[in-house]
Amino acid sequence: MNEILMQRLSWVAYRNRILNDDAIVLLPCGALEQHGPHLPLGTDALLSSAVAADVARQLDGIVAPAFSYGYKSQPKCGGGQHFCGTTSLDGNNLSQMTRDVIREFARHGVRRLALIDGHYENQWFLTEGIELAMRDLSMHGTRTPPLRVVRLEYWDFLTEATLAKVFPDGFPGYALEHAAVLETSMMLHYHPELVATDAIPDDGPADFPDYDSYPARTGWVPLSGVLSSARGASAEKGAWIASETAARIAAALRTEFADTARAKPQREAHA
Amino acid sequence: MNEILMQRLSWVAYRNRILNDDAIVLLPCGALEQHGPHLPLGTDALLSSAVAADVARQLDGIVAPAFSYGYKSQPKCGGGQHFCGTTSLDGNNLSQMTRDVIREFARHGVRRLALIDGHYENQWFLTEGIELAMRDLSMHGTRTPPLRVVRLEYWDFLTEATLAKVFPDGFPGYALEHAAVLETSMMLHYHPELVATDAIPDDGPADFPDYDSYPARTGWVPLSGVLSSARGASAEKGAWIASETAARIAAALRTEFADTARAKPQREAHA
Amino acid sequence: MNEILMQRLSWVAYRNRILNDDAIVLLPCGALEQHGPHLPLGTDALLSSAVAADVARQLDGIVAPAFSYGYKSQPKCGGGQHFCGTTSLDGNNLSQMTRDVIREFARHGVRRLALIDGHYENQWFLTEGIELAMRDLSMHGTRTPPLRVVRLEYWDFLTEATLAKVFPDGFPGYALEHAAVLETSMMLHYHPELVATDAIPDDGPADFPDYDSYPARTGWVPLSGVLSSARGASAEKGAWIASETAARIAAALRTEFADTARAKPQREAHA
Amino acid sequence: MNEILMQRLSWVAYRNRILNDDAIVLLPCGALEQHGPHLPLGTDALLSSAVAADVARQLDGIVAPAFSYGYKSQPKCGGGQHFCGTTSLDGNNLSQMTRDVIREFARHGVRRLALIDGHYENQWFLTEGIELAMRDLSMHGTRTPPLRVVRLEYWDFLTEATLAKVFPDGFPGYALEHAAVLETSMMLHYHPELVATDAIPDDGPADFPDYDSYPARTGWVPLSGVLSSARGASAEKGAWIASETAARIAAALRTEFADTARAKPQREAHA
Amino acid sequence: MNEILMQRLSWVAYRNRILNDDAIVLLPCGALEQHGPHLPLGTDALLSSAVAADVARQLDGIVAPAFSYGYKSQPKCGGGQHFCGTTSLDGNNLSQMTRDVIREFARHGVRRLALIDGHYENQWFLTEGIELAMRDLSMHGTRTPPLRVVRLEYWDFLTEATLAKVFPDGFPGYALEHAAVLETSMMLHYHPELVATDAIPDDGPADFPDYDSYPARTGWVPLSGVLSSARGASAEKGAWIASETAARIAAALRTEFADTARAKPQREAHA
Amino acid sequence: MNEILMQRLSWVAYRNRILNDDAIVLLPCGALEQHGPHLPLGTDALLSSAVAADVARQLDGIVAPAFSYGYKSQPKCGGGQHFCGTTSLDGNNLSQMTRDVIREFARHGVRRLALIDGHYENQWFLTEGIELAMRDLSMHGTRTPPLRVVRLEYWDFLTEATLAKVFPDGFPGYALEHAAVLETSMMLHYHPELVATDAIPDDGPADFPDYDSYPARTGWVPLSGVLSSARGASAEKGAWIASETAARIAAALRTEFADTARAKPQREAHA
Repeated sequence: MNEILMQRLSWVAYRNRILNDDAIVLLPCGALEQHGPHLPLGTDALLSSAVAADVARQLDGIVAPAFSYGYKSQPKCGGGQHFCGTTSLDGNNLSQMTRDVIREFARHGVRRLALIDGHYENQWFLTEGIELAMRDLSMHGTRTPPLRVVRLEYWDFLTEATLAKVFPDGFPGYALEHAAVLETSMMLHYHPELVATDAIPDDGPADFPDYDSYPARTGWVPLSGVLSSARGASAEKGAWIASETAARIAAALRTEFADTARAKPQREAHA
Repeated sequence: MNEILMQRLSWVAYRNRILNDDAIVLLPCGALEQHGPHLPLGTDALLSSAVAADVARQLDGIVAPAFSYGYKSQPKCGGGQHFCGTTSLDGNNLSQMTRDVIREFARHGVRRLALIDGHYENQWFLTEGIELAMRDLSMHGTRTPPLRVVRLEYWDFLTEATLAKVFPDGFPGYALEHAAVLETSMMLHYHPELVATDAIPDDGPADFPDYDSYPARTGWVPLSGVLSSARGASAEKGAWIASETAARIAAALRTEFADTARAKPQREAHA
Repeated sequence: MNEILMQRLSWVAYRNRILNDDAIVLLPCGALEQHGPHLPLGTDALLSSAVAADVARQLDGIVAPAFSYGYKSQPKCGGGQHFCGTTSLDGNNLSQMTRDVIREFARHGVRRLALIDGHYENQWFLTEGIELAMRDLSMHGTRTPPLRVVRLEYWDFLTEATLAKVFPDGFPGYALEHAAVLETSMMLHYHPELVATDAIPDDGPADFPDYDSYPARTGWVPLSGVLSSARGASAEKGAWIASETAARIAAALRTEFADTARAKPQREAHA
Repeated sequence: MNEILMQRLSWVAYRNRILNDDAIVLLPCGALEQHGPHLPLGTDALLSSAVAADVARQLDGIVAPAFSYGYKSQPKCGGGQHFCGTTSLDGNNLSQMTRDVIREFARHGVRRLALIDGHYENQWFLTEGIELAMRDLSMHGTRTPPLRVVRLEYWDFLTEATLAKVFPDGFPGYALEHAAVLETSMMLHYHPELVATDAIPDDGPADFPDYDSYPARTGWVPLSGVLSSARGASAEKGAWIASETAARIAAALRTEFADTARAKPQREAHA
Repeated sequence: MNEILMQRLSWVAYRNRILNDDAIVLLPCGALEQHGPHLPLGTDALLSSAVAADVARQLDGIVAPAFSYGYKSQPKCGGGQHFCGTTSLDGNNLSQMTRDVIREFARHGVRRLALIDGHYENQWFLTEGIELAMRDLSMHGTRTPPLRVVRLEYWDFLTEATLAKVFPDGFPGYALEHAAVLETSMMLHYHPELVATDAIPDDGPADFPDYDSYPARTGWVPLSGVLSSARGASAEKGAWIASETAARIAAALRTEFADTARAKPQREAHA
Repeated sequence: MNEILMQRLSWVAYRNRILNDDAIVLLPCGALEQHGPHLPLGTDALLSSAVAADVARQLDGIVAPAFSYGYKSQPKCGGGQHFCGTTSLDGNNLSQMTRDVIREFARHGVRRLALIDGHYENQWFLTEGIELAMRDLSMHGTRTPPLRVVRLEYWDFLTEATLAKVFPDGFPGYALEHAAVLETSMMLHYHPELVATDAIPDDGPADFPDYDSYPARTGWVPLSGVLSSARGASAEKGAWIASETAARIAAALRTEFADTARAKPQREAHA
């Protein structure tokens, strides 16, 4: 089995994986954000990295170092920026970092890149980073090898069947699934030592209006930061979720990247 | 012993560490950059994180998630941007990310922050990020708690005595110490499973002119990316280096932060 | 009845409305984007302006000039950037324009501002613009009058009862409602002369995968640009939608802004 | 007669106009700025839009949605930023928006674009936006169809003969023509319902020094915001001005764009 | 007589001039731009520096180092960017540099600053730089000493009487005065060794349309880069111009800065 | 002997030097920064310009106008930003100005450009400006003539032999050489009238810790701003330094630029 973590590969090994094997590169995009009293601040980076690793194992891919800091937490989906510990980037800075990194992967000869987003608030700034990078690359004309970039939020790959199993009383919707059953179950599966099960609060479900309001109405958000209770979480559910998510993402990427085969091995002039 | 990794702390635990214990926060700043055929691409992030963790253990501090991507590699100190695998940020983007993160730590109530830089090329863009954040914070006037920020490159804390032990034939200077004896020894100490000892090249020492030239003169740089040979590296040397570096950084921070004691516990309105 | 359009008010009249009446300001945020062969490019700006005007009439508010250009169209919600006529802004530029305008309203003495978004892709860049403006304003300290900003997407105010009436065969979800029944009905209500009823295509519903892919897979999108058919649209449905949307937004703003009453009339030094 | 307003055209109709008819696109550039107690805040956008529409009728052109917000008002030409209601953008943000929009028109296949500026302070930031867009487009090399962009201030097209008729006592110069005879006459012609004739102040002519001073010397500017009196304005004068301006702009564009004929119809791959 | 050039003062001497004498600081703003075959590329920086020095001598002021690079040359006022040797900055970069420098002068305790612009194209980007700096400074609240900034174009201080003497056949207007009689005469007065009198071309006056067109219509501009002939230039005329300009600027600044007297000497904490 | 200062050349003369002679262009990069009570604020710009001029004389090169403002002074190498008179730019603004200017030189047809840096803190922001410009130029593809850019700090060209002569008691290292023996000797050689020999303080050598700390610890820095004493400075030493520096830089550039010969004279279309 090949090493899947890019930071653990030498450049020579990485180059072989990219230029000879046309390896898919997976970039986990997380955040440093409150996840209630029972989950750690790094939950989004930990989970997107874990999902990316599972996918990489199925696709013989490579996982690049995660984005550990993400866009600003919003009250209705992440609790908001008023929590101690939440450490966020301005939107444009996240987009620019994304742009830079994609441009570099293109230079390496990567042809298949997937951003595995684990922080809801990141989505549009990652999208803009991709858009800007694609515009840059199109300016290089034919000298640039074609690079295809996928961006996905991992929870979109859960089937209704699995949601029904995880939420026997009915799925309350993704909106309130912050530090709740889904994330807590996945953490119990991937990182059980980081879950303080007895600290899971009863808070929620939060009841938000149909709009956002600034400065943040902190009173909307439960004091714990949890938007709906994680009481129903279990490691077993986490295993179901993780297994299905990774399998369905791997299948999707296999299909999506099917037409980006490399015509012939291409090597950098220098190496 | 307290948990030292911020991403593994809940926001409640982190808040207690910051507001009650006035914990020092350490931010490792690395890169994703070629380090020869024998060291992994993530070397700078791995080493700055390892040093930060050792320092944190001595100071009961907290280690924030590392910056995994750094400023562009330069031929004379990192081999240059033409290597496959090196994945770098534009300087301003690194500065802006630094600025954002510092502003957030200040909001948390952090009063003592140290950036532990492990990638030579990062230094000035981290500095500018700090300068910009301090300007922002000064605009908030008296509402902002005083935050002191230290930036250091960890290798500057090695004594000449240790260098003499590590380099019995004479220290060739930091300029060529890229993927060479110092970094390789530290990796053998901290992450021996990631060092391909038998792939250590004999290259170098590189002989660079007194200027930089763009586009990069790739011919200046050994094909391996190593600027001087790592043949003399050993885990024992790594232990000496790691031990002295962490101890002397801890001592320096203890002194530097001595006058930033918190007058009285201060809590966020919300929590 | 007061004039509701800011561009039609003299500065003296506007000042009186703001400083004496504490008038709510509504800022419609649209786009210039393909909406199939039957709806005009300006649909999002026209609809958000129309909704804002209806709300303003109920609240005695003021409607600022719409943002006529919005963020880049995405295949899965707006058809994508490959259509001729779609004219979009980079995300940061939209955020910065939003930031500037909010800062100006704060200077005017506006205390209640609502962004009425009619283009799904705008949401996060408007959010970031608001966040940046609030940070700027907080730097001015006590000299700045408190400004509260609401951001909303108008369709979020439709009740399930109305959706059931509009979609007797079941609501297909907002995801595919681009140039489809909702927007077409509203246009038939507000601007019937701009709807080419006989050009409504049968396309759709589009069937998108669970991820986004760049460069855009134009083949995913019906040639017409319509993501699901607008065949079921009618002016009567448009009237139901418009009426409920405006009423429920007005009610929400009335509640949300209840605690931002002006203590005493405050006048600019100059005027 | 073709529809001239781009926001009222479907993308299919717009595409036909651009790719088959090589239609000229006109982009009105206004502001939201005090114009005395007798003219509305939107005067610059209203007038540049009206002129653009008249020109479009003569050239069978298309009018894009106006820029409703412009660069910061300056005391000596627009009264200054201290007036309530004036709502302006930072210069770079206006330039970037201009750049984005031009890049999009180029993508559509537009070959003839004219910015019709109605706000004096916009001029240089529009210019920079055009310069930046042209640089971007030149990077795309031969894949980009040639786009020619004209930028004009509409008042520069008045002849001395007309000025003599409008100002029988002598033209005081454009510098003080803010909310004065020219603009008021044009508003009486195009939008008489928006002119509060009996609120026209007697202020002015303002007497400014030969320099600008910051922070704004608000005492330089008449309290009304009018830099010279609009007493001599009339709808008849407005008709003369409007007629000459549109006719001479149309003639100039016809000449200027004569050499940008499209060699052969070119269609987007997708449509 | 005090040294007037800031770059020749020690920081101690400069501090005394600012904090004890409340010295006015003058910042010349030039360009590196073609000025025909007879004048040097640095003409705008040389002339604005010379005028600033003359003014400084009359006001006991200080001249900061000139901005040697300015905004992009435009065909109708500077010949355009297509000339070899013209070396220009993007508008925002010029604004940001201006902003930085003003913020620094404010930190020094400077209360009276005048930008002496000698390059027509600079005007609005300097203005924006001043606006941005004033906004920054206003955020620092009462801790920042009040700074007043004047921006002027030096040629605006010529009286009609002098213009009549310089142009006995009638003044053709400033529009075409690029590398023509005014600038050439001033260079003959200040830097006669840099004027190639026998290379003065007969070109012009150029006849431009009432609009600008991009990409630049280089055919509009005489091959020499001179917009109207400098044949009538003389050192004597230059002396008249220089003398009047400096005297009238000095008088204006004396008046404008009269109300910015320093209440009491204020010293930096450190020094 | 050709004129070496670009600002004193007409565009026609400059074009001939560039297109016919393939002249090397040298860009001095300085700062406006305290240099103790005995040296002027402009020292870094004056010295880098003087060195550049000496080099230009040896290479028949051209010296562009110096960057008179540089990056922020740091306590350990320049004394820090708290000194009155130090006038610095944000890092990104310096990089962007560098980028703009290089792009312009490339447009002129310059093929050999060297940035002669005289301010230690500039180095990385100049580097980033070069990197950004090279990326821009690579996007223009084959239409852009190849431009090679060298960046150097002039003091790196001193040999150990000369250092031994200048510092008979041992060279204390470049770190403390701010306003000390090297710079003072060079100023005594190039600009003796600007050195206040009797104001040379006895301060220093400063003793700095191995890290940087923000906000600046002003107590680390001698009150004079001098980091080690300039008592040993002399004009004779300055002559040695100047002579060796210029000669060795000229030799290095001659070698470095040897392979950038112009194949055949190339002229701009316009001229």
